[in-house]
Amino acid sequence: MTQRREARTTVGIIGAGPAGLVLATLLDRAGIDAVVLEARDRDYVEARVRAGVLEAPTVELLRELGVAGRLDREGMGHTGISLRFAEAPGAPARDHRIDFADLVGTGITVYGQQEVVKDLLADRIDERGLPVEFGVSDVAVHDVETDAPSITWTAADGTGHVLRCDVIAGCDGFHGVSRPVVAPEVAERVYPFAWLGVLAKAAPTTDELVYAHHDDGFALYSMRSPEVTRLYLQVPTDTDPADWSDARIWDGLHTRLACDGFTLHEGEFLEKPSVTPMRSMVATPMRRGRLFLAGDAAHIVPPTGAKGMNLAIADVRVLAEAVERALRGGDESGFDAYSATCLRRIWRAEHFSWFMTSMLHRFDPATEAGDAFGVGLQRSQLRYAVTSRAAATSLAENYVGLPHGAV
Amino acid sequence: MTQRREARTTVGIIGAGPAGLVLATLLDRAGIDAVVLEARDRDYVEARVRAGVLEAPTVELLRELGVAGRLDREGMGHTGISLRFAEAPGAPARDHRIDFADLVGTGITVYGQQEVVKDLLADRIDERGLPVEFGVSDVAVHDVETDAPSITWTAADGTGHVLRCDVIAGCDGFHGVSRPVVAPEVAERVYPFAWLGVLAKAAPTTDELVYAHHDDGFALYSMRSPEVTRLYLQVPTDTDPADWSDARIWDGLHTRLACDGFTLHEGEFLEKPSVTPMRSMVATPMRRGRLFLAGDAAHIVPPTGAKGMNLAIADVRVLAEAVERALRGGDESGFDAYSATCLRRIWRAEHFSWFMTSMLHRFDPATEAGDAFGVGLQRSQLRYAVTSRAAATSLAENYVGLPHGAV
Repeated sequence: MTQRREARTTVGIIGAGPAGLVLATLLDRAGIDAVVLEARDRDYVEARVRAGVLEAPTVELLRELGVAGRLDREGMGHTGISLRFAEAPGAPARDHRIDFADLVGTGITVYGQQEVVKDLLADRIDERGLPVEFGVSDVAVHDVETDAPSITWTAADGTGHVLRCDVIAGCDGFHGVSRPVVAPEVAERVYPFAWLGVLAKAAPTTDELVYAHHDDGFALYSMRSPEVTRLYLQVPTDTDPADWSDARIWDGLHTRLACDGFTLHEGEFLEKPSVTPMRSMVATPMRRGRLFLAGDAAHIVPPTGAKGMNLAIADVRVLAEAVERALRGGDESGFDAYSATCLRRIWRAEHFSWFMTSMLHRFDPATEAGDAFGVGLQRSQLRYAVTSRAAATSLAENYVGLPHGAV
Repeated sequence: MTQRREARTTVGIIGAGPAGLVLATLLDRAGIDAVVLEARDRDYVEARVRAGVLEAPTVELLRELGVAGRLDREGMGHTGISLRFAEAPGAPARDHRIDFADLVGTGITVYGQQEVVKDLLADRIDERGLPVEFGVSDVAVHDVETDAPSITWTAADGTGHVLRCDVIAGCDGFHGVSRPVVAPEVAERVYPFAWLGVLAKAAPTTDELVYAHHDDGFALYSMRSPEVTRLYLQVPTDTDPADWSDARIWDGLHTRLACDGFTLHEGEFLEKPSVTPMRSMVATPMRRGRLFLAGDAAHIVPPTGAKGMNLAIADVRVLAEAVERALRGGDESGFDAYSATCLRRIWRAEHFSWFMTSMLHRFDPATEAGDAFGVGLQRSQLRYAVTSRAAATSLAENYVGLPHGAV
């Protein structure tokens, strides 16, 4: 082994996505130092388009951390969503609004994940001069079952490094190095469809997201700004985006989103259509010794419930509190409780994402008659969600996000 | 065709179960005459043990009809149920009560379906001397697409009869003659398990039903009287009750119902253990011309939600109103709306029964690891049902029964 440059920090954080950066910020505010390691460069992570819906507790936390200035100016507050469906087979589709403000007194904020990342990096690097190492490779974690774990890595300039830590946070996503070291059991479900997503330069014609149930399959109408519409179509899992011309995509969107009084504005696509597989995954436990998993390293949700980023941020809030308690008072109970505490919220979000996915997607697009019973259940669930205050409240409280610590 | 004795009535009702008898009683109170035809004899239908949970709207209707005297004396009012489950894998099971009274201001009544049938027959035959023909065979319906349909049948003494009607109600169950004449489309789901049910001469040790989620499979603890316990175990679909000795049944019940502070009293079985398959079925439409399906002829629910009899009674309430409107004012809009009106409530009950069934049963008893994701969803759903007021209210309002006409 060649000579490595040695450094020390309290918490070594692998990954500069929302989980890693919010954790670094929480620790900084608690006076705990950390180093963030990221495989990509800053431009890349600041342009990495992912989710776009922030739960109410996520927004509150970002405000508490003092990184919500631009979010509060540019984020689009939504106090509801629409479920668009035909109440009976053959009936025309109608919009049924779930009024979050009325039902649970709060709402969600549409603000791209990459914008959250930009704001956190600007705060950490430009404002405070705190360390984020971009472009690292050969990351490996060591001695995680001792109280002196370390991370080795190679910098962009080829130099070898070793970072000695008290705690390592594996915020490096599903394909990162951390999860295999923890070697958790994985509970998983793969859905028999995917989402084809496009970003169109077209002014949104509704203020809020529209979730459309249609015989041809699910469609989602959403927006990223007053000039940009974000649209999704349920497609088969083996879909090649190259087979979907712009005309075919608009055709599918017009059909599935058709509704009296609704206009779909077309516009140039701002990026190539992408296909997102739909699956659910939960890793248990999320800890091995001093290595803790957070975010996509520990769990995947289908995008239907818009929970991925929010869940990552909820994880690291639990972790930051556990680290503080352990380092300040020598009380490791937060470390011991970390997995179980996070998993309650994770399973709630997994269940809600499964619920939304199951209610809205066509599970059998290939067959003519289809699963008539399954479709009947979906319509009944949809009608119930918009006619029972209890059912609507249940959907709303999950969508806007149950308070941190309440699940 | 041999000479048949001819008779006339307004509504010919095939089947003297809860659907047929409540319909006859509703029509009688509206001054509309009806004849009820039943394949079995009176002793048989009065002893036919089926469901035992009456929704609040069912009880209200039976009171309005003046047939709830004994029900009000002997029925056991329940203002809640318990969900018994382990909050995490390996944790001990605990009871979590769903408090119907607090959540929705009402409750359910435990009173056997055969007791309802006895009360309705006593009112119809013994009190009022109205016609019910028992022991009929060779039942056939004719000319249902005209406004002069008829039913032919053979009496117990071998004489042939023809009953000319304005309307025919097919309340003759899944295997009856009515459904094939309507020839509806059927949406169906068969669950990969069954219930083994026993009736034990043992005093119940809880006041309310206990729905138990267990790694070995679902168990239900219920009661029929202060001296009789009704118990169910999830078993494989191909179960032969002969393979289940009394000792094996009690063993399974003790294991799955184990909970701190709970005692399971054993007692002699009052009838042979039975195996009930679990399935869901919805027939659409429920009408052809002047022939209307109601109850099990049109829909089957798994017993988990205790909806079968309640749904049958809700159907015939809609039908009685439609008949009255058509015969009095010549307004057939109630006939035209019958299917769609009933199907909204039917699908709600189908969905709720599916929800309860899916939340509580082990779907993969044959595999070692099992569907870890599915079990995780169940635990999350169970925890949510007992910690969110919205979720608990949703379960409660479905269980006690949404008001007639509200779905």
